[in-house]
Amino acid sequence: MPCANSIVSAPSYAFPFRSGSACITPTAIALTKRSWKPPIETKSKSMRKGVVRATVSIEKESPEAERPETFLRGVDEAHSSSSVRARFEKMIREAQDSVCAALEAVDGGAKFKEDVWSRPGGGGGISRVLQDGVVWEKAGVNVSVVYGVMPPDAYRAAKGAPTDQKPVPVPFFAAGISSVLHPKNPFAPTLHFNYRYFETDAPKDAPGAPRQWWFGGGTDLTPAYIFEEDVKHFHSVQKSACDKFDPTFYPRFKKWCDDYFYIKHRGERRGLGGIFFDDLNDYDQEMLLSFATECSNSVIPAYIPIIEKRKDLPFTEHQKAWQQLRRGRYVEFNLVYDRGTTFGLKTGGRIESILVSLPLTARWEYDHKPEEGSEEWKLLDACINPKEWI
Amino acid sequence: MPCANSIVSAPSYAFPFRSGSACITPTAIALTKRSWKPPIETKSKSMRKGVVRATVSIEKESPEAERPETFLRGVDEAHSSSSVRARFEKMIREAQDSVCAALEAVDGGAKFKEDVWSRPGGGGGISRVLQDGVVWEKAGVNVSVVYGVMPPDAYRAAKGAPTDQKPVPVPFFAAGISSVLHPKNPFAPTLHFNYRYFETDAPKDAPGAPRQWWFGGGTDLTPAYIFEEDVKHFHSVQKSACDKFDPTFYPRFKKWCDDYFYIKHRGERRGLGGIFFDDLNDYDQEMLLSFATECSNSVIPAYIPIIEKRKDLPFTEHQKAWQQLRRGRYVEFNLVYDRGTTFGLKTGGRIESILVSLPLTARWEYDHKPEEGSEEWKLLDACINPKEWI
Repeated sequence: MPCANSIVSAPSYAFPFRSGSACITPTAIALTKRSWKPPIETKSKSMRKGVVRATVSIEKESPEAERPETFLRGVDEAHSSSSVRARFEKMIREAQDSVCAALEAVDGGAKFKEDVWSRPGGGGGISRVLQDGVVWEKAGVNVSVVYGVMPPDAYRAAKGAPTDQKPVPVPFFAAGISSVLHPKNPFAPTLHFNYRYFETDAPKDAPGAPRQWWFGGGTDLTPAYIFEEDVKHFHSVQKSACDKFDPTFYPRFKKWCDDYFYIKHRGERRGLGGIFFDDLNDYDQEMLLSFATECSNSVIPAYIPIIEKRKDLPFTEHQKAWQQLRRGRYVEFNLVYDRGTTFGLKTGGRIESILVSLPLTARWEYDHKPEEGSEEWKLLDACINPKEWI
Repeated sequence: MPCANSIVSAPSYAFPFRSGSACITPTAIALTKRSWKPPIETKSKSMRKGVVRATVSIEKESPEAERPETFLRGVDEAHSSSSVRARFEKMIREAQDSVCAALEAVDGGAKFKEDVWSRPGGGGGISRVLQDGVVWEKAGVNVSVVYGVMPPDAYRAAKGAPTDQKPVPVPFFAAGISSVLHPKNPFAPTLHFNYRYFETDAPKDAPGAPRQWWFGGGTDLTPAYIFEEDVKHFHSVQKSACDKFDPTFYPRFKKWCDDYFYIKHRGERRGLGGIFFDDLNDYDQEMLLSFATECSNSVIPAYIPIIEKRKDLPFTEHQKAWQQLRRGRYVEFNLVYDRGTTFGLKTGGRIESILVSLPLTARWEYDHKPEEGSEEWKLLDACINPKEWI
């Protein structure tokens, strides 16, 4: 079964363009040169004026019977032992393996279903989903490698290239791992993590033009009930990973996370945060590769001990219903705000991969208000007023 | 308990601006003069160029202990027996009463919870919700009357007013009824209907400027399983209502409905359609008022007989799960595409009123594909390939 680009289909902000570059709108992307087509989004004339013209299409993916050694193109593969591209791909594939193994071990029953896919123009991915297990309601762990082309208008707008220069498409490379894990027990929190690496090449007829690279990602926790020791543990592991590289990382990325996972129409965050960063390139590239690796390796120690402690706790129907309401908020965030999801839906990525982040079940009650002081109220309060957990 | 503007919060396209006026973007609206504030939406400079500057805010609503005779302002109320405004308000309030009474009668147990609210600048509404009844999982029926002001930029852009003329805000009036009804039994279909009327006033210092009015609305059916006799009955009632006014209405509004309720990322419609129209002003105003009245009065005969037949049918867990998956699609349409919902979320309308359209429960399974030829497959096929039912 085919499975699409999980960079654009990542559950949570994962489209491979810098959020800081206002002129590169999410729709201003063509993912491969050969698949470059007229815009599939119809825009009014007035909407087009002044914004970079949108050009979006995603090359159709094909299923693969086996996992290839690498999704890198031949030219990249030739120096695969040294390039950041190759080492990042290796890292996310190892992370996928180890996280999936840990999740299966915790479940003690269900196994991941795997879909391997590739694109004719290069790149591909591995999607793994475990649904309706013993512990897991729905768990998705995806990796992907994408070779694409940025439309010249977008690149020119971003770079301020002289207008007398002939516009040319800018090739890019992106790779990422992306995962959402929804347990069944209302005391066991949902986890999301996503790490990604992005590079632009110099345009073919402008070899001296600047090249760009950056890292993005994060890991965040979404419980329905607060166990303070769990949240402290989770944030401590994130802080430890950050502190190995820069003491400013944790406070900065913790706030970024609180700001990003904000359900504006509710005035509340999706959960209790963690870390989130994007556009990170103002540090040594090797250092940031090590940092992303450290963060990915921190997923299991940050999360699995919490699941082990909570997965078998007895719960009431009332508590399950509250978890379901919070799942409804998760759906609201992902469908309304999450840039990876909304971008993926617009660009025609593989829907099942994009929406694997949605829970198996969710609930919306009219005007539900938890009783003040209740456990449900405490969770909501912490989502409205982010706390310093450590 | 306060309840917000259900014009902007209507479940399905209900914001009171003409979809044909490309320059009046959903965010280019201030709902009352006195509450006119700086944009709450932060937009990048590049996004602002060439598009009408967004100015959105909604005056805070206040709860009312009792339903007033009318939500019209005094000046309108003075000629309340004759104006279209007054007669439209009367019509939607009567429709709300009769639909709610019919729904309670069918349920045989649960009662609607009512919230009445008003805004200091004029207007108000009545929201009614019946949740977790015998027959109904969640049923919302809202009416509202809104007095607002269109920002001058939006009006100028739409009207092409000379740039040397001082820009002035354009007052508008909007009223509507809006409802989504989700039954529990998977063989009983979901119904949505919404009828609305809109007027602009001439700006105060430009009394000769053109005034505008139009009608919009529709009624559509979303079953999880097809009973052909039900769908035929439903569409026949819509056609009969249309045919009383113009033989072109039903085919035109049936197609409009199929086109509007399209979940683009799925390539399928939300349900089996009905009728939908907007920007309707190229007919006699009295005729269109009668048409909207006829459509509103058709809700009960179109829908209640279907519910009576299906509400007590036995069903399996499998059939319930399929209904829940279709409910997931309903959530996707409403949160991602529906203009009333997305506009309401952006403008800070009352969230509980906006999202009353969401079902109590919904479900997302990874890569669910109904078996070819199954009853589930037939429904999906009809959502992918809209049919002529009569």
